[in-house]
Amino acid sequence: MSKSSAANAREVPAPAPSAAGGGLVVRGDMLTIETGQRVELTDVTDRIVALARKSGVREGIVSLWSMHTTFAVFMNESQKALHADIKRLLETMVERNTDWMHNDPAHSDCDRLNADAHLRAMLLGHSLTLQVTGGEVVLGQWQRVLVAELDGPRSRTLRVQIMGIA
Amino acid sequence: MSKSSAANAREVPAPAPSAAGGGLVVRGDMLTIETGQRVELTDVTDRIVALARKSGVREGIVSLWSMHTTFAVFMNESQKALHADIKRLLETMVERNTDWMHNDPAHSDCDRLNADAHLRAMLLGHSLTLQVTGGEVVLGQWQRVLVAELDGPRSRTLRVQIMGIA
Amino acid sequence: MSKSSAANAREVPAPAPSAAGGGLVVRGDMLTIETGQRVELTDVTDRIVALARKSGVREGIVSLWSMHTTFAVFMNESQKALHADIKRLLETMVERNTDWMHNDPAHSDCDRLNADAHLRAMLLGHSLTLQVTGGEVVLGQWQRVLVAELDGPRSRTLRVQIMGIA
Repeated sequence: MSKSSAANAREVPAPAPSAAGGGLVVRGDMLTIETGQRVELTDVTDRIVALARKSGVREGIVSLWSMHTTFAVFMNESQKALHADIKRLLETMVERNTDWMHNDPAHSDCDRLNADAHLRAMLLGHSLTLQVTGGEVVLGQWQRVLVAELDGPRSRTLRVQIMGIA
Repeated sequence: MSKSSAANAREVPAPAPSAAGGGLVVRGDMLTIETGQRVELTDVTDRIVALARKSGVREGIVSLWSMHTTFAVFMNESQKALHADIKRLLETMVERNTDWMHNDPAHSDCDRLNADAHLRAMLLGHSLTLQVTGGEVVLGQWQRVLVAELDGPRSRTLRVQIMGIA
Repeated sequence: MSKSSAANAREVPAPAPSAAGGGLVVRGDMLTIETGQRVELTDVTDRIVALARKSGVREGIVSLWSMHTTFAVFMNESQKALHADIKRLLETMVERNTDWMHNDPAHSDCDRLNADAHLRAMLLGHSLTLQVTGGEVVLGQWQRVLVAELDGPRSRTLRVQIMGIA
């Protein structure tokens, strides 16, 4: 990834106020993300945009749900430098090596010692709701959908549900 | 609560990609949570799962909304040790006893002195959107829906709205 | 703004459990917010409530989406003193003047030097889902919808989508 951020190629402005009535469509998919590091951000925007198009929904929402407690989903710019800053902030706000009870065999049967991953994911969030209009996901110029691996490497799943009027 | 976490007894894997069209159902309910401490986490997953089943919605979403500013809703594992860690993190990130303006009679008419509760709830969030597929709430193995009392003890309300195709 | 907070004038209690079936309505609008400071909170509740009424939706959701990476949307009380506390917390949790990579020309082509704004917005969130019942947005007594400018002054946009049964 270069110093630049991925910009969304919106060549037409977002549509004017829209309203429609009719039958509802709900489409659900599972997105798999293979991660390679303990803490790692991945840009999944293009995959979500493709699923939204495939759904045929013209006006509606895209609900994203992380299938894990230590894997988060959120929105921000996709730039290597900023992603390094995000990881640094998470590591500062939530220390890995302190006496968390979740990591203490006297209080917990979790052997992953991943209290920090639970707490970091909690701050980023596990659920994100986007909008669809004119058959496209609504995204501002620099907006990208990111998932955060916080206890990798692992194989992760994000559930994508598109709901609206086809 | 033991050292173990509550695991969701999903005996069948999450359904394959789903799509459906037809009439929309919206069902709203108020969930009451009585809290016993100033800061306290409660697992409300089973109650939400029951409401979702009762709604008859097969494909759709569950929107959760805290009816209070100092009461949050979020997702994480349900384990006594981790809950202690979450409380510790909140108390570290947002100090209770500092010179918050919201607690200063010269600037605020709030007599609860609960600035910390407002700020902690803001970090956890007041809204959560889950998904329903095949008539069941979509939840990963260790995922539980938690509400956070931040200025208790009080009687609290969570609004649960299920929307989708029956 | 006085020492008091804006309270929602709900003169009737929230309706009892509601359920309805039928045709779906989706209405989308763009809300413009002109900001005057680098970090600034604005209460947009009344504008959202008005759009929800205009949509004619009786049972459904209101999805809010910030169209920017450095502009957040969340819920809390609307009080000058608390808003000062929120700004103070953001400034403490995410320092502006440190060696963020996003602000370093060797690693980033962003000339706004706004890493702090990206990180603060990430903690507040860019998406919020409210509920509508009986034709009104569901809000607790002190609950207000706030947007946070984190890299102003600028002209900002919030997308409001109301979806449900008319």
